[in-house]
Amino acid sequence: MSEQKLPTRAEDFNEWYNQLVLRAELADYAPVRGCMIVRPYGWALWENIQAALDRRFKATGHLNAAFPLLIPKSFLEREASHVEGFSPELAVVTIGGNKELEEPLVVRPTSETVIGHAYARWIQSYRDLPVLINQWCSVVRWELRTKLFLRTLEFFWQEGHTAHATFEEAEAETRQMLDVYTDFAVNEAALPVIPGIKSESERFAGADRTYSIEAMMGDGKALQAGTSHNLGQNFARAFDIQFLDRDGERKYCWTTSWGMSTRIVGAIIMVHGDDQGLVLPPRLAPIQVVVVPIHKNEDERALVMESATGLYQEMVKVGIRVKLDTREGLTPGFKFNDWEMRGVPLRIEIGPKDVEKGVVVLARRDRPGKEGKSVVGREGAIVTIASMLEDIQLAMLAKARAFRDARLHDVSDYNAFKEAIETGFARVWWDGDAALERQIKEETRATLRCIPLDQPDQVGTCFMTGRPTRTQAIFARAY
Amino acid sequence: MSEQKLPTRAEDFNEWYNQLVLRAELADYAPVRGCMIVRPYGWALWENIQAALDRRFKATGHLNAAFPLLIPKSFLEREASHVEGFSPELAVVTIGGNKELEEPLVVRPTSETVIGHAYARWIQSYRDLPVLINQWCSVVRWELRTKLFLRTLEFFWQEGHTAHATFEEAEAETRQMLDVYTDFAVNEAALPVIPGIKSESERFAGADRTYSIEAMMGDGKALQAGTSHNLGQNFARAFDIQFLDRDGERKYCWTTSWGMSTRIVGAIIMVHGDDQGLVLPPRLAPIQVVVVPIHKNEDERALVMESATGLYQEMVKVGIRVKLDTREGLTPGFKFNDWEMRGVPLRIEIGPKDVEKGVVVLARRDRPGKEGKSVVGREGAIVTIASMLEDIQLAMLAKARAFRDARLHDVSDYNAFKEAIETGFARVWWDGDAALERQIKEETRATLRCIPLDQPDQVGTCFMTGRPTRTQAIFARAY
Repeated sequence: MSEQKLPTRAEDFNEWYNQLVLRAELADYAPVRGCMIVRPYGWALWENIQAALDRRFKATGHLNAAFPLLIPKSFLEREASHVEGFSPELAVVTIGGNKELEEPLVVRPTSETVIGHAYARWIQSYRDLPVLINQWCSVVRWELRTKLFLRTLEFFWQEGHTAHATFEEAEAETRQMLDVYTDFAVNEAALPVIPGIKSESERFAGADRTYSIEAMMGDGKALQAGTSHNLGQNFARAFDIQFLDRDGERKYCWTTSWGMSTRIVGAIIMVHGDDQGLVLPPRLAPIQVVVVPIHKNEDERALVMESATGLYQEMVKVGIRVKLDTREGLTPGFKFNDWEMRGVPLRIEIGPKDVEKGVVVLARRDRPGKEGKSVVGREGAIVTIASMLEDIQLAMLAKARAFRDARLHDVSDYNAFKEAIETGFARVWWDGDAALERQIKEETRATLRCIPLDQPDQVGTCFMTGRPTRTQAIFARAY
Repeated sequence: MSEQKLPTRAEDFNEWYNQLVLRAELADYAPVRGCMIVRPYGWALWENIQAALDRRFKATGHLNAAFPLLIPKSFLEREASHVEGFSPELAVVTIGGNKELEEPLVVRPTSETVIGHAYARWIQSYRDLPVLINQWCSVVRWELRTKLFLRTLEFFWQEGHTAHATFEEAEAETRQMLDVYTDFAVNEAALPVIPGIKSESERFAGADRTYSIEAMMGDGKALQAGTSHNLGQNFARAFDIQFLDRDGERKYCWTTSWGMSTRIVGAIIMVHGDDQGLVLPPRLAPIQVVVVPIHKNEDERALVMESATGLYQEMVKVGIRVKLDTREGLTPGFKFNDWEMRGVPLRIEIGPKDVEKGVVVLARRDRPGKEGKSVVGREGAIVTIASMLEDIQLAMLAKARAFRDARLHDVSDYNAFKEAIETGFARVWWDGDAALERQIKEETRATLRCIPLDQPDQVGTCFMTGRPTRTQAIFARAY
């Protein structure tokens, strides 16, 4: 890590983000344009995200599997809107084993098609339903403008694919997984997301309904952090996924798909990060606590290391992810900056005077400077540490929620709308159509992020058409 | 699952394997030739394998990361023997986003090149060494003859890649990871593998030394179940991975790589499986115990289910992976066959008479029929179950070892050699060269599997050249 300062977020949010990702060693650029290397620190964060999501998927009855990377190109063409949505973004394998292939293969951009093909063979009767499968993998979409974690040619994600006997079951599954994402985002990533439904123009290519969770980044822009699609019978018809129902009739299944990707890492960085670097929520942080021993000579070192090692071992024992920073030749100040950059939620400083007094110094990452420092007795410090990690988690969520609420502007005319989206989200009464959405996008670069599930039970006036409506929508510029 | 019988292993080992993989729902064929779908039951087995390996990787100081799927084709060409080894097997992306690419990209067949490129940028000084990174991913090799799990176009694996300051450290790492694989194979998968070093002709393309673990399948053929390569400075020179050493000189790093793949699933099937189906080692089995309640009417059902559910919950509480088979409309006999096919290590039968007598019936998968059945008291059954799972694990290893030892033939002439490889491995005194290996392969289809690390401290006579030698080698036909 270099000691050079990051640009501040106010100076250049974009450059702050790019430099931070590289300098915290979360990710790096790959030799192929737009591809990403996720470095060990970033991958450890992703592994914690995976574990928190996977636990929820399994608790709701889903099983993991693995479907192939390579898909016959013709598969994509079977569902009309799917091919329209994805064909501009495909990476195509045309040569295998030094020979031109008879049929080109695409590197999966998403797996509805190849999974639909399998489900058609696996599902015979209503007894085989529901099928509830998820896979963790990477997918490739030939994006033109890329940004580490947020939009890369290859990205890592999970994609759930389920098949059901009725529309109602498929819709319940779609909503259940949106709830799972919301729960994960709020309670693990400390992201106060807004769950809602997408308008037709923002729908997944091939879905009847797309739900999403939308998060507000530190610059007021929106980021879609997870999506859940009710695919109706579109893919079932395209891939002939039929089942013999209880009534003896053959019927098409109702399918869903839902995904969350490494974009969520970008959201965590942009929501919680500050001008010193990352701020990671304790529940997901690869390192929750770092212990920095401070000593000037061998005697001090022996004294301090005894206390530091003891506390370190206590934390390991109760399952806290802790690092003891014994690197030589680096000043404490350098180490503090280094761990601040990497967003470790809690730092513990132990110097010779602290040992003498029987105390340790705790420094919270979410409250930099004096405000976040406290001195606690060495005996029983473990209890304070554990509860402080919980407190940091909740404080981060509260802070992000306050930030979002302050920038979630209820507006009732187009001028106020234009002002609102300069700093955050515009919440409006909405009765417009796709054409009006397009016009707004062209004029303001803001898109309809979602129709929130949580709607006031009243009637308002559409800010554009002037017609009465019971629906509110959220617009914002988005990543 | 159909009720049709599998072919026996004696009738047709190959067909027994293929049908078993499909019918136990471990894997299925993908629409692209030679590709594989790993179904939930197979993937759950792989997840347990991953967890057991990943724990060992982390305990030896390795971190996980993720490197890109797509590699510029020119990268492969930088290391002469690497390109020679891999170029016939490449899948090549020539089109991205509807445009012909300026430089074709290969779908990674292995990642030494792209990781070498990253290490060259990350490593500056001896302080940055060693770099110890692993990744879990899939790779693509354009194989002509494929077989589920054993050889597929796309397969799942982990690949470790490390960089060191000295040859000695790299060699120690290479050997350490071979030990990790051996420990995993023996103690988790119950596979009595033989660790050894490969001859030059069987070496990884680009390695100075390749070590492997070799397992004997149920038909006496060999399967290479994991490899660990000392890459010398070959990739460091090709990708300019240099570091400033303590003495102020810039030097090339010494690198290693090591991998284990979904082939290991094939090994587990072929070593432990019997004519009834899979037999899974308890430590890796997705389901360790299945409880089959037996009842003919509602009264019996209530009685039996109370006992079965209670025992089920006791097992869940102590962390046993258990399934309670409450499927309706299937006979107990059908369920027994079904779970036998799927290799669940222990089956528990509970009928109304058992409840009356206060007992349950345990049936071990590794000892089919009467021999493996025992009746134990319902009270305290949990203790018997836990220790029986351990016993099954050890018994499976002992059985596989006895099988292997009986077919590991020490032979001293070519005729005995030819006979030996019809049923198993031939262990010989060896002083031959690559030309002689080639001749043996052409004449017998047997290859030099490895020079075992464990060598007798004596002098023998090479079975082909007649020259004295201190080296024994193992030859076999291989998957």
